[in-house]
Amino acid sequence: MVKNDMTAQNLRSAYAGESMAYQRYKVWGQKADEEGFENVALLFDAIAYAEEVHAGNHFAAHDNVEGDFLVAGGGEFGLGTTSENLVGAIEGEEGEVEQMYPTYSIVAKEQGESDAVRSFHYALEAEQIHAKLFRNAKEHVDNGEDIELEYVTICEVCGHTVVDGLPDKCPVCGEPSSAFRKFTK
Amino acid sequence: MVKNDMTAQNLRSAYAGESMAYQRYKVWGQKADEEGFENVALLFDAIAYAEEVHAGNHFAAHDNVEGDFLVAGGGEFGLGTTSENLVGAIEGEEGEVEQMYPTYSIVAKEQGESDAVRSFHYALEAEQIHAKLFRNAKEHVDNGEDIELEYVTICEVCGHTVVDGLPDKCPVCGEPSSAFRKFTK
Ligand SMILES: [Fe+2]
Ligand SMILES: [Fe+2]
Ligand SMILES: [Fe+2]
Ligand SMILES: [Fe+2]
Ligand SMILES: [Fe+2]
Ligand SMILES: [Fe+2]
Repeated sequence: MVKNDMTAQNLRSAYAGESMAYQRYKVWGQKADEEGFENVALLFDAIAYAEEVHAGNHFAAHDNVEGDFLVAGGGEFGLGTTSENLVGAIEGEEGEVEQMYPTYSIVAKEQGESDAVRSFHYALEAEQIHAKLFRNAKEHVDNGEDIELEYVTICEVCGHTVVDGLPDKCPVCGEPSSAFRKFTK
Repeated sequence: MVKNDMTAQNLRSAYAGESMAYQRYKVWGQKADEEGFENVALLFDAIAYAEEVHAGNHFAAHDNVEGDFLVAGGGEFGLGTTSENLVGAIEGEEGEVEQMYPTYSIVAKEQGESDAVRSFHYALEAEQIHAKLFRNAKEHVDNGEDIELEYVTICEVCGHTVVDGLPDKCPVCGEPSSAFRKFTK
């Protein structure tokens, strides 16, 4: 639950941002598939699910505040080539890593909002990995090649994202490997 | 593609609204499942996908405008009992049916924005059905019973939503039955 309006507003904004990220990754994933980058498509699809986990966590941390709100959230737009879409993906993730989650986190800490602190922390940890994965994907796509990838696992509790591996225990939230959802071709 | 900024802004706002609707239906669906309303959970899950179709259509109609935007979008919040969550679902759908899509549609028509007109039309048609389905679900849940439901089919092109049936042809967008995705327990 959330007690202070500033943190509540940040949770709503982050929820809007994650919600929009999910949808554009679904669209950009389809585009990657059409262009023959099936592993980039898989990456978009799996990371979309990580954003769903983040959106759900923010929504749950905001559980006691009910009703209709006009929410301001940041989103990347444009449906271009996969190389162009990856630029948007990288910029979105880097904006979350460098500005949104660090500032929302210190505000939540200042206000003693433990659920929001945890929810923002989980997201920040995952977005750093996402930014790195998308930067790598862009390099490959710009060389006209797909990325190497067999499967992706995503922690259903925190959105931690692992390429071609399944940890015994989530390094971010501590859940066992059974909490990971596997995305394959 | 979109030419006028007012319609572009409305597409972004509708995209934010649909994106947030998808995520809260996923969360509220899990809650319905936990409360033993497995058919209400299925309804939330299927309708979430219809909102994904709408979000994707708005995003595609906005395809030529690239970059990062701060987007204002309407969303229902609160994670309560399934009866309470259905109130939020009904209010969200009714707001889209009575205000958002009718006004966005006349603006898009005035500006000669054919892609946006189509995307808003597809959504408006589906939201009317969603509002009705959620009102029916709330009546049942308030009587302590689940809804009767075997499966839901959703048109992948327009989000048209059918309970326990599969049309030969989508009555909204004209796609054949093969364009429908089926959601079962
Ligand atoms: Fe995220
Ligand atoms: Fe991310
Ligand atoms: Fe985790
Ligand atoms: Fe919708
Ligand atoms: Fe709807
Ligand atoms: Fe359709």
